Amino acid sequence: MSGVFIAFEGGEGAGKSTQASILHDALQRGGYCTELLREPGSTNLGDYLREYLIGEQPVSPLAELLLFEASRAQLMTERIEPLLNNGAVVIADRFAGSTIAYQGYGRGVDLDRIGWLNDLATGGLYPDLTILLDIDPPEGLKRANRRKQEPRQQLRLPLGDITTDRFEGEATNFHYRVSHGFLQQAAANPGAWHVIEGNGSIDDVAAAVWAAVCPVLPARAVAPGG
Amino acid sequence: MSGVFIAFEGGEGAGKSTQASILHDALQRGGYCTELLREPGSTNLGDYLREYLIGEQPVSPLAELLLFEASRAQLMTERIEPLLNNGAVVIADRFAGSTIAYQGYGRGVDLDRIGWLNDLATGGLYPDLTILLDIDPPEGLKRANRRKQEPRQQLRLPLGDITTDRFEGEATNFHYRVSHGFLQQAAANPGAWHVIEGNGSIDDVAAAVWAAVCPVLPARAVAPGG
Repeated sequence: MSGVFIAFEGGEGAGKSTQASILHDALQRGGYCTELLREPGSTNLGDYLREYLIGEQPVSPLAELLLFEASRAQLMTERIEPLLNNGAVVIADRFAGSTIAYQGYGRGVDLDRIGWLNDLATGGLYPDLTILLDIDPPEGLKRANRRKQEPRQQLRLPLGDITTDRFEGEATNFHYRVSHGFLQQAAANPGAWHVIEGNGSIDDVAAAVWAAVCPVLPARAVAPGG
Repeated sequence: MSGVFIAFEGGEGAGKSTQASILHDALQRGGYCTELLREPGSTNLGDYLREYLIGEQPVSPLAELLLFEASRAQLMTERIEPLLNNGAVVIADRFAGSTIAYQGYGRGVDLDRIGWLNDLATGGLYPDLTILLDIDPPEGLKRANRRKQEPRQQLRLPLGDITTDRFEGEATNFHYRVSHGFLQQAAANPGAWHVIEGNGSIDDVAAAVWAAVCPVLPARAVAPGG
């Protein structure tokens, strides 16, 4: 596969969607063939499952996990693999790391089971680079709540943030466990994960993201502004 | 758990829904606390996923498998486990055996993976008795097609048969593989699976089903007609 696969991870209000979108725009301006995807979503099935998960219907932790993996399996086959085969830079707003952090560290589902399911759904294809936007949970939740009060049409993304809608009611210590789960993954995969402090201004974070992304981009294209 | 768990399995047009419904009525008349469930379905999530699977949207074999398992996981937690804990006779129109037959033998997904997922979704709780209604695939498909031409409201079940709608377009040899997959499971589990020839009249098959079910019913209740 000749493309590059970049994922953004992080807790509520860390700035993932904003930064993923800024990176996507920058890559497009730089002449890269690039696609911005989000999980769950970016396929008919993913959008259908997202719609359910945003609601308040009862879903057991295990069923929830299997829904995220079904969405991911479809996304791999239908979008990510063909895009990477065509040399695109694929940007994912959340990926397998969120499942480990939320369903594993957050909900307490066995991590080995989640690892097995992630391997199954991805076929073992993981991002070349995962950017973890790290933010203190109380600060992130404050941001996420502020954002929810803005009219939807002012947001860059048309639908609600799945985690903000489904998980924000969880106690603060749930979000601390999730945050811890992200940092653990970054520590265990220093070659593929890059941690960026999410508290800075949008421009400062975008600059740090760009510095992390540059080394993994294919050399042949022209960098933005270059 | 003090209840009894009975599943009906079989290919297209084998008579599962009809026989499950007859058994359910007979048990109710006999004073048993009993519940008729179907897969996917019988929970909000299951009905929501069924709606998608009945349609013609693209779903990869792996995503399809994960959707069936998500529906099953929710059904276990929300319905089957509480019912069995309360001593009910639970009747399932399809269960884990269908996933092995359709997604495994039919679609070619690795059987060990499906076994692992079935164990995960069921928590290792399998039916006390699985009744396999065995029918030659061409005869079953003919029956299923005939049934599709009847108005929906004349059927015992309000929604379409997931397999008739989703899998009937598959070539006949797909249905032979599915049929083979069911018979293999019955042969491997002679204590828990019971094969009944599905070609007979509705009454003859119902009598054979009743004869198979009687030995697993709790003794304390009164048998129908008894």
